[in-house]
Amino acid sequence: MFFAFDGIDGAGKSTQIERLVGYLRSRDRSVVVCRDPGGTALGEQVRKLLLDHSDMEIGVRAETLLYMASRAQLVSEVIEPALRRGDTVISDRFISANVAYQGFGGGMEADRIVSIGQWATAGIMPDLLFVLDLDAPAAAARLLREKDRIESRGLEYFERVRDGFLRLPDLWPGRVVVIDARLSADEVHDRVLQAIAELPGTSDVSPTAPSNRGAGEQR
Amino acid sequence: MFFAFDGIDGAGKSTQIERLVGYLRSRDRSVVVCRDPGGTALGEQVRKLLLDHSDMEIGVRAETLLYMASRAQLVSEVIEPALRRGDTVISDRFISANVAYQGFGGGMEADRIVSIGQWATAGIMPDLLFVLDLDAPAAAARLLREKDRIESRGLEYFERVRDGFLRLPDLWPGRVVVIDARLSADEVHDRVLQAIAELPGTSDVSPTAPSNRGAGEQR
Repeated sequence: MFFAFDGIDGAGKSTQIERLVGYLRSRDRSVVVCRDPGGTALGEQVRKLLLDHSDMEIGVRAETLLYMASRAQLVSEVIEPALRRGDTVISDRFISANVAYQGFGGGMEADRIVSIGQWATAGIMPDLLFVLDLDAPAAAARLLREKDRIESRGLEYFERVRDGFLRLPDLWPGRVVVIDARLSADEVHDRVLQAIAELPGTSDVSPTAPSNRGAGEQR
Repeated sequence: MFFAFDGIDGAGKSTQIERLVGYLRSRDRSVVVCRDPGGTALGEQVRKLLLDHSDMEIGVRAETLLYMASRAQLVSEVIEPALRRGDTVISDRFISANVAYQGFGGGMEADRIVSIGQWATAGIMPDLLFVLDLDAPAAAARLLREKDRIESRGLEYFERVRDGFLRLPDLWPGRVVVIDARLSADEVHDRVLQAIAELPGTSDVSPTAPSNRGAGEQR
């Protein structure tokens, strides 16, 4: 099983990933968590090139292709072997981020980004992609730390990115769950679990299934 | 006008690029020379990741996409502006190298590499690509310096790469000139000039056109 979380920074991805990992581990699932870009030696080098504040010029096509290179390595080195072992993989961002940021935000055709992404990942796509939806001003208000190279772009850019995220259900029918990120972390988490429970073969991790651990470990 | 040189290492690209640059400058052409991967701040960083001897794992898809990222930046930052100014651009390798090495050598579908390459370069392709053809054992014998990460692969790999280079005229009809690299440097250079002279709009650099410099500067 392969899940990804995406959405503009500040929407609460990290919190939800942590909650889902905790939940799945409490149900004895073996879980591999990764971040895209990153997650491999090459990916972390590429991530530095992409996100560090620097004067280095990076055009939107080069930027997209760097993400794709990092992702290709992440899939071949981490995600594909984990799925083959039967582990559950949870990725912080995936191709969806390039569609929203470089596609809708940066003016590149979404279909071409999807098609390059499918080549990069050899066709490996999340079973479910959770999009945590938040409007750009609300996301900016939540983001208190120093912004990286991409986060420093203006509000208008982030509104286009948000529109891109909201278009993803059309691009990947049946695989994208958009959740209002203004809901409480508990409510968002519950919706994530509900969506997973509706997938075939997930009865062992359904919120209504009996856990095989003591109640003290549950939340 | 945009020219690229490609072929397995040891085939004499550097010599021929130098000769052509000298010739075009003697005919008062403004020439920009670049290398792919490389040629920009980002490209040189990516080149290091690709070619340095290191233990870092890089799969064939990630490798291809890193080349594409470097090339996208090279086109947007260097090649496209130079062509817009009316300069002649000469590139040491281009998309052709990915088709030969990662496509034919690495088992990736050539058409997909071409299509990603066209997106990376926003459709900017060489007017002429010169492939300097040499069989793998002869190339290995010529290459005396220490091999980089890609050059360290075996002879069988390089035979597949060579076959890939020889298939390029089918992929880009009318734009690829294959030249036997066992010819003398003078003979190869003459064939390069002949092919350029057959392009429309190149009468000022034809070998038979009068030069506007003194004969002492000619070779």
